[in-house]
Amino acid sequence: MHTLTIVGVGLLGGSIGLATKKRGLAKIVRGVGRSQDTLDRARELGAIDETSLDLASAAAASELIVLCTPVDRIAEQVMEMVPHCRPGTLITDVGSTKGTIVQAVEDFLAPRAEDSSSAGADVHFIGSHPLAGSEKQGSQFADANLFQNRWTIVARTARTDVTALDRVMTFWQELGARVRVMDPAEHDRALAMTSHLPHLLAAALAGILPMEWNELTAGGFRDTTRIAAGDVELWNAIFTHNRQALLAALRPFTTRLEAFHQALETSDWTAVKRLLTQAKKIRDGLNG
Amino acid sequence: MHTLTIVGVGLLGGSIGLATKKRGLAKIVRGVGRSQDTLDRARELGAIDETSLDLASAAAASELIVLCTPVDRIAEQVMEMVPHCRPGTLITDVGSTKGTIVQAVEDFLAPRAEDSSSAGADVHFIGSHPLAGSEKQGSQFADANLFQNRWTIVARTARTDVTALDRVMTFWQELGARVRVMDPAEHDRALAMTSHLPHLLAAALAGILPMEWNELTAGGFRDTTRIAAGDVELWNAIFTHNRQALLAALRPFTTRLEAFHQALETSDWTAVKRLLTQAKKIRDGLNG
Repeated sequence: MHTLTIVGVGLLGGSIGLATKKRGLAKIVRGVGRSQDTLDRARELGAIDETSLDLASAAAASELIVLCTPVDRIAEQVMEMVPHCRPGTLITDVGSTKGTIVQAVEDFLAPRAEDSSSAGADVHFIGSHPLAGSEKQGSQFADANLFQNRWTIVARTARTDVTALDRVMTFWQELGARVRVMDPAEHDRALAMTSHLPHLLAAALAGILPMEWNELTAGGFRDTTRIAAGDVELWNAIFTHNRQALLAALRPFTTRLEAFHQALETSDWTAVKRLLTQAKKIRDGLNG
Repeated sequence: MHTLTIVGVGLLGGSIGLATKKRGLAKIVRGVGRSQDTLDRARELGAIDETSLDLASAAAASELIVLCTPVDRIAEQVMEMVPHCRPGTLITDVGSTKGTIVQAVEDFLAPRAEDSSSAGADVHFIGSHPLAGSEKQGSQFADANLFQNRWTIVARTARTDVTALDRVMTFWQELGARVRVMDPAEHDRALAMTSHLPHLLAAALAGILPMEWNELTAGGFRDTTRIAAGDVELWNAIFTHNRQALLAALRPFTTRLEAFHQALETSDWTAVKRLLTQAKKIRDGLNG
């Protein structure tokens, strides 16, 4: 590949840049952002080769574009770039929600694909979500091995171009990731449970800690609430996109919490042990 | 100190042994347990010098005894050892609950202290709780620096002997810990929020993960549920001891969870952001 463009060079975008350059997957890695300082820092770290503050001109000279911006900006940025892209340009993203983004972009691209003379007639978008990252922000936390052996979901719909899907899958695999293809709605249901609900619970717990007990927190409290330090706007946007699936994931949690509450209230230690045992068994099945 | 006896040589007991020996605080560190294999392993790791399967004889030859056994066994083991202790023997523990343990032992010791001819007349118990450890078990995870700069709570009541309290505080400080004195009930209220509720929530979340989504968990889910891998019997005993404070800690959490639920249900993103912001501010105030 000649030019890879990364829009948003933070922890994830920076890691994609480092991993691409380490593996020699592109001649040029271009970073696009709103702040020249941020871009310069990413260039100094070796995550990107070139910088640009302009989406349109960056779009015009790229074979692959990866958007690493907050979920509420991805679809509009894709739509802004598409008319400037050369035929064959492939666009993907790393957003934590897929349904809203993929539908908006596909609705935008569909009429263009039918009119081969239109700008963006042969431009494809495939939604992606690498299950990596952390509560930290900024390219200073970027890591060339961030995707190594981690899962990346790529979204397939009835409208997905299979050649474009294959190219995006190959890209993630070349960065070291394992790839799983999912329907966007299925992705959002799963991630509501495995990522967005944990964030909500971490925030609910962190939010009620009285300050005078700060010193009395140890590893358990810190682990369970670590992600509550994540960026507020970013998580608000994720919750907005995935509101229904998050509400659906809250239901079994609330039921389980009520079961714990009932068991404690009635001193039903057999039930408490059963609940703890089920949880331990499932947690022991996850590594790390 | 000539002889330190550690009852229960797992992660915490082993760490106390390693830290004591590293700092040269006792001539002999004796480990007491029910399994010779476990004790031999701890001796091979250098956490203890001698092993014993018998509480009574170990009690007879110790200046300081630290119980590192599950919270539902500590008080009865103290009572079993006291009649065999030499005058001046000091006993402490590392249990995650303090109210039940301290009251049981003080009720047992009080009549003895009044009769100077009785066995155990000059034996003192001070409840302790080092805020260290993890979901891991066994002396193979012991660490000589586990207590370094970590808080250890020591429990003071109206019946506490202040000389004994000072000796226990000095012991923990010599192991590198910072020491805070608290009333046992206050300790239990605080720890219900900072440790026992997080465990319950981690277990409630881990317990509802459908197996087909195991692969879709990343750092967030793993952090929030890590402690759910903890020992079931041990945590059931903690919940039993601290049932009322845990139920009390559940109340503000449930209220906060309901606030999140309402905000999502009504798409009140101002409220969602406010809740996320409060949580981030508190979490940012904790290190690590």
